[in-house]
Amino acid sequence: MSTVYEVEALRKFARDVLVKAGLPAEPGEVVAKGLVEADLYGHTTHGLALLPDYVEEIENGAMVKDGRPRIISDFGAVALWDAGRLPGIWTTELAVAEAGKRARSFGIGAVVLRRSHHIACLAAFLEAPARDGLALIILSSDPSDSHVAPFGGVTPVMTPNPIAVGIPADPDPILIDVSTSITTAAMCARMRKAGTPLPGKWLLDGNGQVTDDPNVMKGGGSILPIGGVDHGHKGYGLSLMVEALTQGLGGFGRADAPKEWGASVLVLAFAPEAFGGREAFLRQTDWLVQVCAKSAVPAGKPDVRLPGQAALKRKAEAQAHGLALDSGRREGLMGLAKRFALAPPAPI
Amino acid sequence: MSTVYEVEALRKFARDVLVKAGLPAEPGEVVAKGLVEADLYGHTTHGLALLPDYVEEIENGAMVKDGRPRIISDFGAVALWDAGRLPGIWTTELAVAEAGKRARSFGIGAVVLRRSHHIACLAAFLEAPARDGLALIILSSDPSDSHVAPFGGVTPVMTPNPIAVGIPADPDPILIDVSTSITTAAMCARMRKAGTPLPGKWLLDGNGQVTDDPNVMKGGGSILPIGGVDHGHKGYGLSLMVEALTQGLGGFGRADAPKEWGASVLVLAFAPEAFGGREAFLRQTDWLVQVCAKSAVPAGKPDVRLPGQAALKRKAEAQAHGLALDSGRREGLMGLAKRFALAPPAPI
Repeated sequence: MSTVYEVEALRKFARDVLVKAGLPAEPGEVVAKGLVEADLYGHTTHGLALLPDYVEEIENGAMVKDGRPRIISDFGAVALWDAGRLPGIWTTELAVAEAGKRARSFGIGAVVLRRSHHIACLAAFLEAPARDGLALIILSSDPSDSHVAPFGGVTPVMTPNPIAVGIPADPDPILIDVSTSITTAAMCARMRKAGTPLPGKWLLDGNGQVTDDPNVMKGGGSILPIGGVDHGHKGYGLSLMVEALTQGLGGFGRADAPKEWGASVLVLAFAPEAFGGREAFLRQTDWLVQVCAKSAVPAGKPDVRLPGQAALKRKAEAQAHGLALDSGRREGLMGLAKRFALAPPAPI
Repeated sequence: MSTVYEVEALRKFARDVLVKAGLPAEPGEVVAKGLVEADLYGHTTHGLALLPDYVEEIENGAMVKDGRPRIISDFGAVALWDAGRLPGIWTTELAVAEAGKRARSFGIGAVVLRRSHHIACLAAFLEAPARDGLALIILSSDPSDSHVAPFGGVTPVMTPNPIAVGIPADPDPILIDVSTSITTAAMCARMRKAGTPLPGKWLLDGNGQVTDDPNVMKGGGSILPIGGVDHGHKGYGLSLMVEALTQGLGGFGRADAPKEWGASVLVLAFAPEAFGGREAFLRQTDWLVQVCAKSAVPAGKPDVRLPGQAALKRKAEAQAHGLALDSGRREGLMGLAKRFALAPPAPI
C-alpha cells in the first residue's frame, strides 16, 4: 500500500535529514532535490530509497561533507575536477552548470568529475538545461564496482555505465537515461530481496549460462551488456566508451583499485546556437517527436512514447496530487526521522 | 572463390576510377583510401562494394564533384559545415582533422556536417587520430532514408544511426563502430539478395511481427533498435540522440524531407592532455584492455576481444599478404575498369 506526500514536504524533510547528518545547506538542498526528482520521474531505485544509504555514507566518512570540488585542469572549453568524495548529486549539478556555461562560450563544454560520490538519477540533471536550450550528455561509471562482463567473457569488469541525454524539443525535452547493460545492479538487488526473477534472461552466472535469477550476482554472475547474447558486442562497445570518457579522461579509475562507492562522470553540453541555431535545432527535433508519436502501432498496442515522456507525466501528476511512497521508502524515512529527532513528513 | 590483391594496387585503381569519373585528386585519393580501409577491416558492405554506386552518384549529379564544404558557423570549439553533397568520406576526413585541431586548442572540438554524401565505414576515420592520442566520437544519420521504427511502433522513422568511438590504448586503439539498430540496411539488402534469412529475428514486418526475413524491408518492415523487443527502448533512445546531435545541430534533416542518399555527421574530439593527461588516460584504458582480454570465458569458448581488435588483425594480414575480394566486388571493379578504359587491378 502506498501513502501520498506533498512533494515540497519530502524535499524539506530530506534536506533536514542531510543537514542534520552534517552536510552544509547548499549540498543538502541539492541532494534532497535530486533524490525527490528521481522519485517524481518514477526512478524509484535512485530516489529517496537512497537517503538512508547516503546518511550512512556521511556518518562513516565515505561521503565527504565539507569543501568543494578541486580544479585539476581548466583548459578552454573543458575542465577536470576532483570531487574529493563530496555528494555526487551536488558535484554533478555543479558540473552541469559549468559545462553549460562553457557551451555558451565555446559552443561545447565538457566537465569531467573524478572521485565523486554516487550521483543517483542521471535524468534528473537534464530537464532544466534542456528546457533552457542546451543538449546535454552525461556518462557515468563507478570504478569501485564491477557487474558487467566484457562480451564473450564471464568476469565482471564494468558497471552498468549509463548514457543520459537531454534534447531540447517542444513542448517537452526528450530525456534519455539508459544503462549500457540490460539492467542495473540496483534492480538486481531489489529483485533478489523480493525473491523474484528478473523480467528476462538478462544475467550470466559464473559459468556463462544465461539466467533470470538475480541470486547469481552474489556468486560471480554478471549483467549482460545491451543486446545480450544476441548482439551484446554493441552494449560492450558503448560501455567501454563510457569507461574511457569518464575514468580515462578523469585520470582516475579501475587501475587505481578504488574501494569506495563512487562515480566518474563526464558532462558534455552543446549549445545549438553555436551550430545551426536554436530554432533550426527545434525544427528538427520537434518533427522527430511528432513523427515518432504518430507511428503506427500493432493492433491493440499503446501509442509510441518519447523517452522521458512517461517520467515527465508522472512528475506533473505528483506535483499536482502528491508523491506516493511504498512501505520500504516510508520505513526508511521514518527511521531517519526518529534518529535525527525530526518530525516525519506527514501524508496528505 | 576469393582472389587476392595488393592493397596499394586497389587503392590506386579506386582513385583512378574516381578521378576518371570526375573527382579532383584530393577527394579521389581520400575516398579511395577510405573504401579500401573498410575492406581491410572486414567491413565489406562499406568498402569497394560501394565504388560502382559512388561512380553512379557522381554521374547522375547526386555526389557533387567540385568545391569544398561551406562554413555555416565557426564558433570557439565548434563548427557547422554544409558539405554541399560532396563525397562524404572526404568531407568527414576534413571534419575529423578540424575537430582534432580544435580539441588541441580547446580540450574538445566538434564539427557537424550537413548535406554530406554517404560516409561509408566510420571505424576507418578513428584509427589515425586515436594512435595520435585523441579520443573521437562520430555519429551519423541519413535524413533521406528510414529503416528503424521508434520502439513500440512499426513506422520506420530513423536510419541505423551508428556511434563510432576511437579510444587511445596500447598497443592498439579500441575502435568501436556500432549501429544503434541491431543490423544495418546494407546487411538486410545483402541477405535479401542472397536469399537467406538474417542471423536473428532482428526485424519487424509492417504489422509489428518479429522476423528474420529480410524481404519485409521492401514491404513496410523495419530494423529493430539495439535490444530488440526485449529492451529496445535503449537502442531507440540512443538512435534519437544521434538524430538530434547530427540533424538537430546541423539544422537540416528529416523536417526538410531530403530525397538524396546522404549523411548528417557529428565529429567530436577529446584531447586527454586537457583533462587528466595522456599518460593518465592510457593508464586507465590499458588496464581496461588487459582486464577485458584476460576475462574468464565459458569452457570451449574463444578469448574475449576488444572492439577493433579483429579488424586491425585483418588489416595487418591484408597489408602483409594482400586483400581477398569475393566475386561480387571483383565484378564491380572489372566493370569499372572496362568502362573507364583502365587496367583492372592484377591479382597477386
